[in-house]
Amino acid sequence: MRVVVTGGAGFIGSNLVDALLSDGHHVVVVDNFSTGVVDNLHRATQTRRCQIVEGDLLDTTLVADAVRGADAVFHLAANADVRFGWNHPWRDLEQNVAATINVLEAARASDVRRVLFSSTGSVYGEAQVIPTLEDAAFPQQTSLYGASKLAAEGYLGAYAEAGHLSVTVFRFVSVLGPRYSHGHVIDFVRQLARDPARLHILGDGTQRKSYLDVDDCVAAMRLCLPRDPRFEVFNLGVDSYCTTTESATWICERMGAKPEVRFGGGDRGWIGDNPFIFLDTTRIRSLGWAHRRSIREAVERTVDDLLAHPARLDAPAEDRAAASEI
Amino acid sequence: MRVVVTGGAGFIGSNLVDALLSDGHHVVVVDNFSTGVVDNLHRATQTRRCQIVEGDLLDTTLVADAVRGADAVFHLAANADVRFGWNHPWRDLEQNVAATINVLEAARASDVRRVLFSSTGSVYGEAQVIPTLEDAAFPQQTSLYGASKLAAEGYLGAYAEAGHLSVTVFRFVSVLGPRYSHGHVIDFVRQLARDPARLHILGDGTQRKSYLDVDDCVAAMRLCLPRDPRFEVFNLGVDSYCTTTESATWICERMGAKPEVRFGGGDRGWIGDNPFIFLDTTRIRSLGWAHRRSIREAVERTVDDLLAHPARLDAPAEDRAAASEI
Repeated sequence: MRVVVTGGAGFIGSNLVDALLSDGHHVVVVDNFSTGVVDNLHRATQTRRCQIVEGDLLDTTLVADAVRGADAVFHLAANADVRFGWNHPWRDLEQNVAATINVLEAARASDVRRVLFSSTGSVYGEAQVIPTLEDAAFPQQTSLYGASKLAAEGYLGAYAEAGHLSVTVFRFVSVLGPRYSHGHVIDFVRQLARDPARLHILGDGTQRKSYLDVDDCVAAMRLCLPRDPRFEVFNLGVDSYCTTTESATWICERMGAKPEVRFGGGDRGWIGDNPFIFLDTTRIRSLGWAHRRSIREAVERTVDDLLAHPARLDAPAEDRAAASEI
Repeated sequence: MRVVVTGGAGFIGSNLVDALLSDGHHVVVVDNFSTGVVDNLHRATQTRRCQIVEGDLLDTTLVADAVRGADAVFHLAANADVRFGWNHPWRDLEQNVAATINVLEAARASDVRRVLFSSTGSVYGEAQVIPTLEDAAFPQQTSLYGASKLAAEGYLGAYAEAGHLSVTVFRFVSVLGPRYSHGHVIDFVRQLARDPARLHILGDGTQRKSYLDVDDCVAAMRLCLPRDPRFEVFNLGVDSYCTTTESATWICERMGAKPEVRFGGGDRGWIGDNPFIFLDTTRIRSLGWAHRRSIREAVERTVDDLLAHPARLDAPAEDRAAASEI
């Protein structure tokens, strides 16, 4: 198959690209390299079946050209900065909603029926029922990021309903693993690499988090590629959770650090931080999928990868500030 | 109070403006007059407490100026063309989502805390449970219009969660009454005014519809103005429904017409047409609200108003084509 992966140079995207290539597909990566990095495609570009299109999804001509002739599109490109959305309230609308509509219009125009979309467990807001099912009660959004992903899901639903597309939506918990670039694990590793004697944790450390290893995430996405629904949604997550403090403990052990830990206080790290996203994954399990790695393994693999690629610990100022977000 | 009403020259908006003025408020109408009409503000402009700002909500300066100093904003302006969304897939995003974010940013910038928003029962998609509660199961969207309204609701939720706003969302069934401009009643009256011997009905006539009279709609909105929630949602509708054929019968009787009726066929009028939106209104009733007019009264009042203002039967080409949509 010829498969387009938007955001294919990013963390999850590039892992997906590698998997699709090893499955024998031809892959077209579309990425504006705002957060994606060329190095993530190092393995991919060693095959002849990977084409890279550098550009923004707001460029309708570029999107139309990239999508034409494809059998399926994995649309993963997004602004994933949950915490600092309020500094630029338009960015999510442009990068997560308008960009999605561009992809959908391009698919509709060239009769590319199959679209698979990376959404987020954040769309459940403060879920009333945990673990949360895909058809949970209509939620209130708690972040611009969640609002923009919900908006994109809504557009995908409308395109599917009108018969233009066959759509699969994935709602992820936070994902960890090689090439991870964004969230509390990188923040903790960065702090400890700089000073193994001190660790500052936002919130009070009791925030519960459920993390999925990127290999397990990608396995679920590959599994759904051949499906042909009108519109379906799958939660992707693990069947357990940890606290921020537990995660910090595993990271410290892995790095051999025994820091003095300070807490920012409060039951969440920042405004809009969701204290607990824990998803019911019965639906995706019914397809035969199961996660293979535990949260602890995912955390440790991430630490190992970061220590092996110290350049990943460098990041622009706002990203550094945002790093503790998920 | 000083109250801004976006879309205040429209059908529901202008009825709300009249009510707010009779309650003694100062009202600032913001309307781009794309579908709103000056004549709807005839009564309003006879007071000195009504100011009209002509302009588009995509003009950030205009929105900021209009909102500054207000105590509350009723944000009603929207592209309400459900049926022909596919002819211009970007219009809903601009007029219903981007415009909403402009209003929210303007409110945030000038510390206007109270925002009341007109959403739609369309956001429930094909509801699994009817009558549908506000916290129904997470829906798939079935139209670009519904997707854009859901998106706007998501943004309102995020702004409320971040402490910027106190938000009330109203999800309407279709609304009828004086100044009504859009939907199947106007289409039927128009057809019969032209030729009382013939009536063409899209679908098979069995589509069930629940209609609220605009006075009842406005009464609920006034009732909620003094509230101060973080974020709340109210369904607005009546406790019964009719079929398209019943509604046609009432219209024919009111007009003294006995046409030959032809049906387009199928269980819905057009792609994305939702066969049945019927809302559970227990929540708004718990505040003491109840609708006073039946569906039949609302239909008859609408027919009378259209016949008394035949100019309302004129409409641009696409609106004419779209007229049967709700």
